[in-house]
Order: sequence, then structure tokens, then C-alpha cells
Amino acid sequence: MTYKVGLLGLGTVGAGVAKILQDPNGRHPLLPDIEIARVGVRSLNKQRDVAFDPNIVTDDLESIVNDPAINIVVEVIGGIEPAKSLILKAIANGKHVVTANKAVIARHGNEIFSASKQKNVYVMLEAAACGGIPVIQALKQSLGANRITELTGIVNGTTNYILSRMYFEGADFGDTLAEAQKLGYAEADPTADVDGYDAADKMAILASLAFGDRVNLEDIYREGIRSITSADIGYAKELGFTIKLLGIARRAAGKEESDLEIRVHPTLIPIQHPLANIHGVTNAVRIEGDPVGEVVFSGPGAGSGATASAVVADIINVVAALKSVPNNINQLMGCSHEHYAKIAPIENTVTQFYARLLTHDKPGVIGDLGTAFGHHHVSLNAILQKNTIHDGLAEIVVVTQQVSELNFQQAIAAIRELPTLHSIPTILRVL
Amino acid sequence: MTYKVGLLGLGTVGAGVAKILQDPNGRHPLLPDIEIARVGVRSLNKQRDVAFDPNIVTDDLESIVNDPAINIVVEVIGGIEPAKSLILKAIANGKHVVTANKAVIARHGNEIFSASKQKNVYVMLEAAACGGIPVIQALKQSLGANRITELTGIVNGTTNYILSRMYFEGADFGDTLAEAQKLGYAEADPTADVDGYDAADKMAILASLAFGDRVNLEDIYREGIRSITSADIGYAKELGFTIKLLGIARRAAGKEESDLEIRVHPTLIPIQHPLANIHGVTNAVRIEGDPVGEVVFSGPGAGSGATASAVVADIINVVAALKSVPNNINQLMGCSHEHYAKIAPIENTVTQFYARLLTHDKPGVIGDLGTAFGHHHVSLNAILQKNTIHDGLAEIVVVTQQVSELNFQQAIAAIRELPTLHSIPTILRVL
Repeated sequence: MTYKVGLLGLGTVGAGVAKILQDPNGRHPLLPDIEIARVGVRSLNKQRDVAFDPNIVTDDLESIVNDPAINIVVEVIGGIEPAKSLILKAIANGKHVVTANKAVIARHGNEIFSASKQKNVYVMLEAAACGGIPVIQALKQSLGANRITELTGIVNGTTNYILSRMYFEGADFGDTLAEAQKLGYAEADPTADVDGYDAADKMAILASLAFGDRVNLEDIYREGIRSITSADIGYAKELGFTIKLLGIARRAAGKEESDLEIRVHPTLIPIQHPLANIHGVTNAVRIEGDPVGEVVFSGPGAGSGATASAVVADIINVVAALKSVPNNINQLMGCSHEHYAKIAPIENTVTQFYARLLTHDKPGVIGDLGTAFGHHHVSLNAILQKNTIHDGLAEIVVVTQQVSELNFQQAIAAIRELPTLHSIPTILRVL
Repeated sequence: MTYKVGLLGLGTVGAGVAKILQDPNGRHPLLPDIEIARVGVRSLNKQRDVAFDPNIVTDDLESIVNDPAINIVVEVIGGIEPAKSLILKAIANGKHVVTANKAVIARHGNEIFSASKQKNVYVMLEAAACGGIPVIQALKQSLGANRITELTGIVNGTTNYILSRMYFEGADFGDTLAEAQKLGYAEADPTADVDGYDAADKMAILASLAFGDRVNLEDIYREGIRSITSADIGYAKELGFTIKLLGIARRAAGKEESDLEIRVHPTLIPIQHPLANIHGVTNAVRIEGDPVGEVVFSGPGAGSGATASAVVADIINVVAALKSVPNNINQLMGCSHEHYAKIAPIENTVTQFYARLLTHDKPGVIGDLGTAFGHHHVSLNAILQKNTIHDGLAEIVVVTQQVSELNFQQAIAAIRELPTLHSIPTILRVL
């Protein structure tokens, strides 16, 4: 059976979803069972980089959520309206919904989830927080055995990009924001990002799943990053910290029945902390649970491909669940592989190598090595000769460029024959 | 309906599983539907720190996999036999299986998955690779939209502990291994860990799921860390690298139809790489997919709580699937929260603060500040006065200890009244 998707919105995320579904080879085996049957757009005349049969494209979005043939409505319009009304109408019509809309879920999740419960349909939202990072699924399922005690996250890419540049370049906020706007990492009106509204939306969703209760967006303490100066970053650095816009959700004092703490604000993080080294537009979420301990997820929090990855994962989950009937396996939980992979022998590997060599301290040694490597097409990336010579020996370290294992081993075999070589204590590969 | 689990093995992992199921409050709402109905142990007389009705404990493990009342067999014995035979017998009897046994899955997954397919039962293995990190579920489901191009991982905690200590302390391999053995991070016979066998088992499982084909363990190139010396670590550091035992699986040259590369060996990793800062016994997996990009998961790869977290997640998944009948929601995919969380007001927050203050450069300033903070029960962790004084002003940075927001704000209000204070340009919170 084929499952029919009605796609609402054909912006960057919608186009990303369409590209995955139109090119299923090498992806999950359920993808060919999923068909984009209707596409709703605001303007029919806009040029797009994905192609559809013109008959399935419409600017009447309501006709899609009312179409009896559609099984799953995918909402990637963004914004509150008409997205919210379309989602509710789709649910009322008994359709499953996949949405990437953090603003709608954070504000109207209450109404939407109550409606979905009543109509017995799925509302999936992996893409609504942290884009390509599969943190929603982890909270719903993989970490289900745990009592979550704390969830902290860098959940806004724009501010993390700005703060990372300020940290590394000592630049000021204003200049960095202007640069981010020029590069497309920040909007012309940056309020939602730099003042923490976007992060608060996501924390509402994540905290709700982590702690099993709905969250009122207005209850979240929120502070943006406009006040951070390069002087602050400098001091933070000197004290062993970096500064990040952090979302923090936890049970106060770790007490199980105590109130939740949820807040979004710029935060000094010890440089050894796993979130301190999350730089640029990357998002990351750190979850502490009993008994699992500390688990950290990081990845792209936004962008066409990353968000589409999460949307399509949700579609697959819904389809798998719909296919699952008693005495039949939910395909997502089984193992679909049936064939042996053909594994390349190590000689075919192309990688960088590190080698430490002991040579007799004579003129021409470096030349001998260089000639031997070059003869076997091994280019060097770095060569380092230390002054510490003992017993008339010199220690030389080389790092190659990307070379085939076969070529490298042949070069090493030749080098072992050099009269100037004493020994090769270590050979390692470089990632 | 209650689902009956037969637990094979009551070592650290088995005891961890039992502890979670005996204490379901605050965890996933499905847990109370799961009952440990039989427990199989090697010795009935051993003292244990989990208690069961003695009538359900037996040393006849086969009687459990043959018991018609059991729905799900959880195998946490470890080792090849009798684990493998018990798993196969459970499947033959139509039972679902959850296992933490990487050795059995890596070597006999072929036979086990074929049998499970034939008998239409689940075989779940989240705990078989990387303990508490939900990477198996991500590969099966959350990243299903992607074409995986590369999976790299620090998948063995013992070797990462040893290499981390060598990196930070300049210690030698032998001494560090001895220390790790004394602390219980390495076995008396460390071969499986330090020679890369354990990592190869896990990479076989992960690569199989990432690339959709079974993997022959013997095809994986494997090299351990015995040859690494402190000199190598020193050079690597000087060159901007750290050394990790890395599992690498990828399509050669990124070509979709090309052979797989799978190898386990010590590897120099650029210090900026997301896996370079994974230290100690922590595991991490980096997955590159099209279109998601780079996603990194890190967390505890072993230990009672972490592994039990994964085992119980699998049990929940099976139970949710068994409960799911047409027109009924698979509970794991819906949202179970129905109540609003009570959110603590920000004043109740206890945290560390960072403040940057400008003061008039007069004697007694530090004393005034210290007195004001102390009066409001705000203890200081660090205080830093820079020599750069301009316009007769001194810049002072303080970091507090954990204090309540209310106390801190009252202290700040008092400080604002000090005649020696010029202004407080920045106040931030510290994680």
C-alpha cells in the first residue's frame, strides 16, 4: 500500500522533504511506499528547484487537509496562521500530521495534542526542535527508562554562531550580528533569535517531553545576548569559560516532585563542559537521566537538509505504525538487511598516516626519506625533526597527505632498506 | 494487559534492569505494564542487591525460554554460550528478544535475525553497542531518511580511558593499563579491549545498521593500542592531534555503490574534531548522512545504569508495538503529557553568577563589595581586578558560588547604592 502525503509549504524545508522522497535509493526501505500526492504553495508562479506534476500543486491549502485521499499532512509553512488552523483541520479530518513548526507547537501544542488524542491520530514534531538532531525521538522512546533530571541545550544556531565568532575573534556583538546577517545566518529582524524567543519555543517543547508535562511558554524565563561584549568574552575566557545562549530545564535541586526550572539566557560554561565546544550554527542538547547518566546529542539545528531529515523520519515512523497490524512486524523495529556487505580490504583504504622514525644522524637523511615517499606517490603534510638526538640517532615524525595504504606500505618497505634508517617505532592513521 | 519478561542473567546489567522496572515512578508510563515474571541466574545462592520473590528465580535458564507465559526474553548473560542457544530457542518459541550481547549479535546476528524474521518476533539490541547512547534507534528510525556516508566512533571505554590519561598526564601505556585494571576500568585479561576486538564487534553492528547490510566480523581490519607510547602522544599533541582508538565505517570515496570500509585502529584526530574531546570512559559516535550532515552522539558506553537504560528502552519499544493495534495509537509515538508543569519563578533559581563591575579606583572598594555580597549570603568563587584603569575607574569581575537569584539580586541592589560603584555593565549566569 502507498501512503499519500499532502505537503503544505514548498520553501527550503518542503523542497528538502520532496528531494528525499523523490530520491529514495540508499535510504530507508519504507520510502518508496510514501507518495507526495498533493502540494500546497502560496504562489503557483514561483520558480522552484523541485519538480511536480502541475496537477498536484495548488494554492488552495485547505483543499489538501480536506482531501479524503490524503493520509498524512506535512506542515512546513511555518508561522502561526494559517499553519495552526490547517493542522487542526487535518486532525479533525482524521489525518496524521507531521510538523516542523516550533512556534505553533510551543504556543498551541495543548489544543493540538488534545485534538489528536481525541481523533486518534499522530502529531509528530521531530523537526520542531534542533532540526536534524534526533532528540525528540530519544526523549519519547530511547531514554524512556530514565527519570530525566536535567536537559540543557544550545538550541539556537544564530546566537551560537555570533557567540562563537566573538569568542574566537574577540569581535563585538554589533559587528558580528551584521556579519551574520550578511551571510544569511541571521534575519534582517534578528529579534526572535538574539532575544531568545526561538530558543524558548524549543525549550518549551523539549522540556515538555523530558519531564512529561505541558509547558506554558510565558512561564519560561528568557534573556537574549545583546548585552554581551567582547570584554565579557575575554574575561570569561581568562577564567576558563565560554559564553553560550543556553536553555536549561531541570527539577530544582534534583527533587523528583519539585517544580521545574526552565530558562533561556547567556551562560558561562566551563571550557571542559561538553557544550562548551559546540561552535558555529551547530546545536547540542545534553540530557541527564537516572540511571543513564549524561548523554549529549549535537548536529545541525536548521537548514533544508537537516530539517527535512527529521520531517521524513517522522513520516517513516507514522507509515511504519500504520503498517503494523497484530502478528506483523513494525518494520522500523526490525532489521531490514539481508545481504552481506562487500568489505574493502585495508590496502584500498585512502587515509593520512603518521610515522615516527629513528634515523642515524647523518646528512641527507631527510632527502632519503622524501625521495622514498615521493617515489611511491606519498605526499607529506608535515615533517618534524626534534633536536633530541641520543646515541647518534635523530627522531623524525611525518604526517602524510591522503594516500592509499598500498602506496604507503610500499614506501615504508623501501624506507626500511635505507642505510640511514635505524627503525620505525610507530605508524598510525590520521582521521 | 501486563507483559511478562523473562530475565536471563542478574549481573550488573540484569540488576540495573530490575531496579528500573521495580521503580517505575517518573519514568515512561508504559513501565507499570511490564512485569519481571521469571529470573534466570547461574547460582541461586549468590547475594544480590535486588530482591525477587524466590519462586520466580531459577537456575534452569532453558525453562524460562520455554515458558509459555513469557512474552519477552531479556538476555543479559553475555558471552557466546549459552546466550546464543537461549536466544534462538526463545525465538523458536515465538518470544520477542531484547539482548545486550554484542559478541553474539556481531558473530551470529545472521542466524538470529533470519530466525526472528521467520517467527515474526522482534530482536532488539540497543544495549549491544555504546550502552546508554541511543544510536541504534537513531540508525533504525530517526536517521532513516538519510543515505549514511560515514560512521566513526569511540566505541570502547577502556581504551579511551587509557588514551585520555596518556594524553593528559604523559603517562606510558603499561602504567596506565595497570592503573585502569586497579580501578576496574580494564579487565585482568585486557585483550578484548586493548586489542580492539570489542570495538570491532560494535562496529560490525553499527555499520550493519548504518549501511543496511550484514557485516562479517572477520572482514573488519583491527589494530589495538598496545604500541602507542607517550612519545607518540606528545608528538601528536604538538601537531595538533589527539590519539583515539577509532572505529571507522564508510563508503569508499563517498560513492554510493562502492564497497564499505570498516576498520578499528588507533587514529590521530585533529584536536578540533568533535570526537577529539571525548575523554575517559565516554563513548561517542559521529554519523554523516545525506542530507542531514554531521550528527554526534556521546554518553556512557557501559556500566549497569547506562546499559540497563538501553535494555529497558527496547522492552518499552516492544511492548508499545505489541499494544499497537489498528485504530489505536502506538503510545511511544504520541504525547502522554496532560498537565501543565508548575514552573519555578526565576527568583527561586540557585546558580552561579558572573558580574563585571566598574568602580571608582579608591581604597576599600573590594572590601565594600565583599561586605555587600556577604551580607546577602552571596559567597564568591573568584574575583579578578584588572590593572587597566581608565578615567579613574577599575574593572572588577566576580564569579559567585551557587546562590539563590533572590539573594544575588538583593546584593546587587545594595552594591548599586555604594558610593564607590560606577556601574555594572554585565551580569551573567554560570552553568
